[in-house]
This record gives sequence, structure tokens and C-alpha cells, in this order.
Amino acid sequence: MRDVAIIGVGMTPVGEHWGSSLRALGTDALQLALKDSNLTQIEALYVGNAYGATYSSQTQIGALIADHSGLGGLETFTIEAGDASGGAALRTGYLAVASGAVETVAVLGVEKSTDSLASARVSARNISLDADFETVHGATLTTLAALLMRRYMHEYGVDLSVFEGFSLNAHANGSRNPNAMYRNVLRAGAFGKAPMVSDPVSLFDSAPDGDGSSGVILTSRERAADLVEHPIWIAGSSVASDTLALQDRQDMLYLKAADASAFKAYQQAGLTAADIDLFELHDAFTILTALTLEATGFAQRGEGWKLSQQGGEMLGLGGHLPISTFGGLKSRGNPAGATGIYQAAEACLQLRGDAGDNQVPNARIACIQNLGGLGSTAVTHILVKDE
Amino acid sequence: MRDVAIIGVGMTPVGEHWGSSLRALGTDALQLALKDSNLTQIEALYVGNAYGATYSSQTQIGALIADHSGLGGLETFTIEAGDASGGAALRTGYLAVASGAVETVAVLGVEKSTDSLASARVSARNISLDADFETVHGATLTTLAALLMRRYMHEYGVDLSVFEGFSLNAHANGSRNPNAMYRNVLRAGAFGKAPMVSDPVSLFDSAPDGDGSSGVILTSRERAADLVEHPIWIAGSSVASDTLALQDRQDMLYLKAADASAFKAYQQAGLTAADIDLFELHDAFTILTALTLEATGFAQRGEGWKLSQQGGEMLGLGGHLPISTFGGLKSRGNPAGATGIYQAAEACLQLRGDAGDNQVPNARIACIQNLGGLGSTAVTHILVKDE
Repeated sequence: MRDVAIIGVGMTPVGEHWGSSLRALGTDALQLALKDSNLTQIEALYVGNAYGATYSSQTQIGALIADHSGLGGLETFTIEAGDASGGAALRTGYLAVASGAVETVAVLGVEKSTDSLASARVSARNISLDADFETVHGATLTTLAALLMRRYMHEYGVDLSVFEGFSLNAHANGSRNPNAMYRNVLRAGAFGKAPMVSDPVSLFDSAPDGDGSSGVILTSRERAADLVEHPIWIAGSSVASDTLALQDRQDMLYLKAADASAFKAYQQAGLTAADIDLFELHDAFTILTALTLEATGFAQRGEGWKLSQQGGEMLGLGGHLPISTFGGLKSRGNPAGATGIYQAAEACLQLRGDAGDNQVPNARIACIQNLGGLGSTAVTHILVKDE
Repeated sequence: MRDVAIIGVGMTPVGEHWGSSLRALGTDALQLALKDSNLTQIEALYVGNAYGATYSSQTQIGALIADHSGLGGLETFTIEAGDASGGAALRTGYLAVASGAVETVAVLGVEKSTDSLASARVSARNISLDADFETVHGATLTTLAALLMRRYMHEYGVDLSVFEGFSLNAHANGSRNPNAMYRNVLRAGAFGKAPMVSDPVSLFDSAPDGDGSSGVILTSRERAADLVEHPIWIAGSSVASDTLALQDRQDMLYLKAADASAFKAYQQAGLTAADIDLFELHDAFTILTALTLEATGFAQRGEGWKLSQQGGEMLGLGGHLPISTFGGLKSRGNPAGATGIYQAAEACLQLRGDAGDNQVPNARIACIQNLGGLGSTAVTHILVKDE
């Protein structure tokens, strides 16, 4: 298996881009990533997108963006795994380059949810739940996250305030990121007064949907050496799955897929959680942050919330385990199928030392994890810089 | 790059399966393919599906089927490229095994269009067109195929009757296939009297949408030797793309992506069109059959229709170039994202000598080609049997 390098990254700001289309957004990020990699042509384009069919009545988005970008003709298709689509697309690009079949690949995440029919906007993201056994009864991602959070508080005897630190940290980091959707710093006390979305999930527990696109360029070791000085290496790549319906899980508070995919990725990289310098996790809800930290080896079961309590010394940019270093889903925003590629691009900037105001000092090893639904798909990648 | 073998195939009948769900259909085909491969567990499941989001309000179909099949936890995600989704999923499975990252893979195509909202059924497949520049104006796949066919007739001075042979051949073969959706043999003269769908595309020029699922199991050379006596080898695998909108093509009658992907696949396999013993092509419309034969090296430009004129001696099971050997999309049916995997499974049965009443004598090398939209994505695989 060949080593796979990331040699370019590109991101557009996350937000409501009423003036841009799916193909235009994707092209913007693709061109930024190509420029960063010093390439003008590539062999394949794998696109992570979750809701183009429902938001924009559009499939074959890869061919659409390839044509719009002037790269028409190349190998391209779309990868979907709910909000883990970006991560799964990165996995596909990794496999393509690792196999030797393809030399240069762009992996692009793109999502466009504004300028769509209102009915589609309300329901689109819920199609990542179990349509026959959850959505049909009126369940949504947020109401199910609320059930998870309520259960967690009951089992471990904690109240809402223990989740505050995750949100404070995300917004503190996002406030420095020009690509972030909500750059406001949360004032002390604001978390406890936030309007409820679905009790106990408040506005500051849940990440905003947004339009956005992000791309990374992958190639082999040989080619990377010709193109850039400091490639970032994919040392671990793994996908695992769990049931879609929460009710089908033996233990609702255990993110089985997050655990399995992190474990496999650590194993491939020859590392453990203790080696990770920063972790871009899937903080679509603060309860997912707590459960993810427990599933991936950073906290014991029932104790993920404790990391939130330790403030900047634990989770901040200079802390023991920096997370959501550019704002995470909570502040940077959650452009669904693009989110996993934002995570990858942000982690690369950290490892290259190009993260500016968001830089984690001496970052050498990053873990990124992208979830679909409430952990039904989990994609974990370990990124490392050369010594 | 490792050699990749197909060691198991499974297909459900194509049709209107009102009593079955997306997950149940997929599980049926997956279990058939697993049984055929003598495996009970696999490492990854890549699912080709195009319209689950719109027909069934369901994403993350891989995780859904993995759970329903009792294979929960494994690596899985969905691949989409319009009606070429199945072919693109096969490409993904090929890359995964070729890379060495994964040892055993199921590639499943599944599509379910009955039992959906009527509005979704009417519009769903048109989302593989360009939403902003074609669909918005009321164009559909069939009306655009009609434009292509009309142009072809004008340019080459032929009438409707020249397409008849493609339809006769497909139905003759499909009549022997228990999995085919329409097993009627077309009577002489019926083609010319068929009701128009979109003039000049008649009922007998266009393939029926259907529910269906088909799976193939892939593994490495080493593992294949332990499991089955006669694996089938993927000697060539390639994807290429073209514009979505017909109006953006320099030459509407040239399927650029079909040409490019076939050429790359032949090249990888060290073969030419002359070496192909049977060709499962994407006969969603008879005009696509003619244009595909021209783009892939089996006919000169403007002369694809001539193969139709030569009847069974050319295209039949015992002919010079057997096509649509189990009925093709026209008679077996076109379950969208599953179609490419039906093509793969049918070609494997031919090469194994297990095609029963549909057997092509002495079949050693098969080409399969799956198209998205009207050729916006083209996926070509070359399958060969051991000597």
C-alpha cells in the first residue's frame, strides 16, 4: 500500500451563500486547494455531499463541478454517509491513491442548503435517520440528540452546565477563524440562558447548518516530493458503522462506530489516544462531544463532561487536548457533507504551522473524526507531519 | 496494485416490489452474493444507490443494510453517480481491495422506487440532469433522449426502424431471464406500432424503472484461491465524466465519457474492443445503445445502428458481439443505482459458464459499461476468466 500525502487544502467561508450555487461553491474550494498544491490538473475528483438530491434536486455533482471547474472528463463520483460524507470521500481518495490506480486526487466536500425549498430545508437532514422507524414518527436529529443528552444527565447525575465548556471553547476558537459561520465569543452566563431548541438541547448545544465547501489534494509520496515542501501524511484511515435508529443500540450512550473507527485508525498509525496533539471531532451537539471523547479513548465512560470543566487548559489551543481548533461544527458551522473535509483542511493547517491565530503549538499528530446521523457512520483519519 | 477477484454474485428479480423495503431488498441480494462466495463475514460494504434520498427519504443506506443483514459495524458508505452509481461503487470496491486496505468487500447496488410519494417518483430520476440549466426548464431524461435520437436520425439519414434490432435482442434475451422485469418477446412489427413516450422515443426504445438489488463480493488473489474454484478477475476499471447538460457538449452525438472510460479500461487490461466476447452496455434508450457502440470501438461514428440491422448473428447470444445478454436495461429493467451491479453479476455468470439459457458460448472476456444521466458519468469494467 502506497503512502498518501495531503499536499493542498482550500476552504470557503461557511454561511448562508444565497448568491452562490452548489457548483460555484464547490469550484471555489477546489480551485483554492489546487492552487495550494501547485497542481493545475488532477486525475480524479471524489465529492462528499449528503443533501444535494434533496436541497438542490441534483445528483452527479462530481461531474457537474468537474465541468464547471474546467477539469471536465476526469474520474468523479459522489460519496454519501450522511454528515460523514466528507470523511467517507477522504477515505475513498485515500484508497485510490494508496492502490496506485490514481496519482493525483481532489477530495471535495460541498453542501448548499440555502436557496432551497423551505420544506426541503426542514426535513433534508433528517433523512440521515432511520426513515421507517424514526423519521416516520416525527423524530429529528435534534430531538434524538435531546433524548441522548437527557439520558446522559440521568445516568451520570450531571446538569446542563457541564456541557458549557465545549461550547465556550468552540466559539473562542471560531472567533479567530475568518471562515467560521458564527464568530461570536460566548459571554459567561450566556450558555445557561440560551433558548431551548429541544429541551435540554439549547441553541448553544447545537451546531448551525451552513453552506460551504472545502477541498484537499492527495497524492503519492513520489509526486508529493516534487510539488510541496511539507506534505501531511495520512497515517490512519478507517470507517465503521452502527445502527441508524438509536432504539436499536444496546447502549445508547456508547458510540460504537466512533470507538471502532478510532481504534482501527490508531492501530494503523501505530499510535494511541495519548499521542494525539489535537482532535477535530464531530461536535454537532455538545452531547456528541462528550460521548465522542469517551468512545475514542480520551475519557472514561461517563466522564467526558469532565474535560469540559477543565476549560482552556484542557481543550484550548494551548491545552492538553485541543479540540474544535477552528471553531468546530458549533462555531465554524456544519455544512453537512463538507464538514469532514473542513476538519481535514483545518488539521493540515495546524500540522503545517499555518493555522495563524488558531495555531496549536508544536502540533505533530492530529485526529479527525466525522460522524453521520448520531454516530451511525464514523470516519476517523490520523494525520501526521514529517519529523 | 493487487489483483481483484469477483468471487460471488447475487441478484433479486427486478420489478415493482411493493412488499419489500430498501433495506430488505438490499439484504436479499447481499445474502445471495455472500452465499455464492462461501463467506459469512466481510470487511466493507460499498453501496451504489442514486435515489434513496428522494424515493425513500433515506441516506446512510450502507449502515442501514449492514445492520439489517446482521453485519453491523463494518466499513460502509454510499456511492452515487446517477444511474452509474452501481458502476462507481464497483470501482470503489476495486480500489479498496487493490490497495490492500481491505481484504473482503461486498459491492451492492440497490434501488427502490415503488411505494414512494408520487411526486418523488415522477421527478426523482431527473435529478441526474443539470438542475439549473435542464430540469428547471422541464427537461426530463426521456425528452432529452428524444432530442438525441431525433438529431441522430437527421444527421445520419436513418428512420426509427433502425433501432428495432436493439429492442428485439434485449427482449429475446430477457425472456429467458427469471430476474427480468419484462419477459415478453417482441413480435415482428410491434416495435413500429409502440406508443410514443416522447417522440421519437417509444415504449420499446426506453428501459423501465424498477426496484432491484444486486451484489458482488470482491477479494484479493490469495483469499480468492481459498474460497472459490473459478474467480472472475477485474482486468480493467475506469471512470470518466462529461457535462451534465447536453447543450454544453461540443458534439451531442459523441459520448465522450463512454469513449474515455472504455479506452482507459481496455488499456489497463491490455485489450481492444476486438477482444471483447460480450458487452453489457447501458441501453436505457436505444439511442444510447447506438451511441455507446460508436464511442467504445464497436462501430464507426454514425454506424452504430447498423449492428442493430444484423440481428442475432451480430448481437445475439451466439453472435459476433452479444449485448444485453440477460435482457439489458430494456428487458431486465433499470433499477438505477443497482443497474451497474446487475451488469457485473450477469457478466460473471457468463464468464463462469453459469448463464443457463442465456449463456454466450466460450465467453472469456466481458466489458460492462454503466452510464449516469445521458453519459455524464461512464464507468467501464473489463472482466476476465482464468485460462
